[in-house]
Amino acid sequence: MKIDVLSLFPPMFEGVFGESILKKAQEKEAVQFNVINFRQYSDNKHQTVDDYPYGGGAGMVLKPQPIFDAVADLTKESKQARVILLCPQGEKYTQPKAEELAKEEHLIFICGHYEGYDERIREHVVTDEISIGDFVLTGGELGAMVVIDSVVRLLPGVLGNDVSAVKDSHSTGLLEHPHYTRPADFRGMKVPDVLMSGDHQKIERWRERETLKRTLTRRPDMLEKIELTTEQQRLLAEVKNEEK
Amino acid sequence: MKIDVLSLFPPMFEGVFGESILKKAQEKEAVQFNVINFRQYSDNKHQTVDDYPYGGGAGMVLKPQPIFDAVADLTKESKQARVILLCPQGEKYTQPKAEELAKEEHLIFICGHYEGYDERIREHVVTDEISIGDFVLTGGELGAMVVIDSVVRLLPGVLGNDVSAVKDSHSTGLLEHPHYTRPADFRGMKVPDVLMSGDHQKIERWRERETLKRTLTRRPDMLEKIELTTEQQRLLAEVKNEEK
Repeated sequence: MKIDVLSLFPPMFEGVFGESILKKAQEKEAVQFNVINFRQYSDNKHQTVDDYPYGGGAGMVLKPQPIFDAVADLTKESKQARVILLCPQGEKYTQPKAEELAKEEHLIFICGHYEGYDERIREHVVTDEISIGDFVLTGGELGAMVVIDSVVRLLPGVLGNDVSAVKDSHSTGLLEHPHYTRPADFRGMKVPDVLMSGDHQKIERWRERETLKRTLTRRPDMLEKIELTTEQQRLLAEVKNEEK
Repeated sequence: MKIDVLSLFPPMFEGVFGESILKKAQEKEAVQFNVINFRQYSDNKHQTVDDYPYGGGAGMVLKPQPIFDAVADLTKESKQARVILLCPQGEKYTQPKAEELAKEEHLIFICGHYEGYDERIREHVVTDEISIGDFVLTGGELGAMVVIDSVVRLLPGVLGNDVSAVKDSHSTGLLEHPHYTRPADFRGMKVPDVLMSGDHQKIERWRERETLKRTLTRRPDMLEKIELTTEQQRLLAEVKNEEK
């Protein structure tokens, strides 16, 4: 996969692209990152990329020209690119969207830092507007990193343990059960007996039950969105009964 | 505000903390960042921080000891710290939470990279579990950066233009209206006439209307959560009528 990022702050990406999974993904040639300062595409002699909004108001607006020309240049050879704008007005980002984007060959991310983007960029250049959540960030860069991280970890061969990619929360539609590791007694705080019983069936049932319990307590909305097996329904009824 | 981050990949933060608003916030002494590799707190001679899960299963679990001791050390002098764990099981992050955290003096973020955290960390060390959204990331670092960025920009004096902090989407509870800047005609794509009319009342009304229209089209759930003024209700009815 080829990923281009248009940003006015390219050094922001260095740390994140240079560590951990994203670093390994590049080494394995599963992905190729290219962070471009789109100021270099400005046809203005002062290389400006923003201007005052028509109609007045606070803040600046990103001009259409540098972004139109940058995207045209980056898509000269591959016309199939998805062009993603990070903005609060976008579609709320979720795991199914990550899975959809992971099938693409070329993603281009546009990151702004000002009051807004000229509307003509949205209308004529962008294929996807994405918001990572209902909170305000100073720019699109962190949103782009979040989307990139969640997409790249899904690419074939990137995660060492293929199971990890599948069993995480939000992949199964339920929150994960509690985890424990050694020591069994840490400063008086103990690991539940069942986990040390060696009875795998019992452990599996405890985990399934805790998964349902945690989801019920913290994110009941997630339970409404998935189809539970008969066994899960029985366990959930048990958990609900207990809470009374 | 003092912000400590516990991570096994401290260089991930360099780019983001070294640019734009977060850099300026440090220069203005509104915030002080401290990124710590919690491996240094491991009392094990191999400095391990993770171990196999009790009860079996894929992936590793972060051990309690290094994180308990790191947080104890970081809170020696300030007992009032909020200790935030980034995880998919956490409370969904939204702007009101950013506003709440912006009032604190000391935040500690715990970022993991493995299958999970030992449950005793959640129970005894952490004050807030936060999820930035329903998608899977390779670690807690990007979530921490997102929360930090959204909190720091709210600190007094950080944003140059105080208006910007207030008028963004998700602060007003509505999505922003479209923005336009020069040129008025960009390769045949034109700016709406009203924005160049000079009639400020008309412009204000157009913007209010477009704000409601965009929110209705893209995020009708947001309209249910806020109280509209009588004028907004009238405009919204007009927009709905038009769509039919």
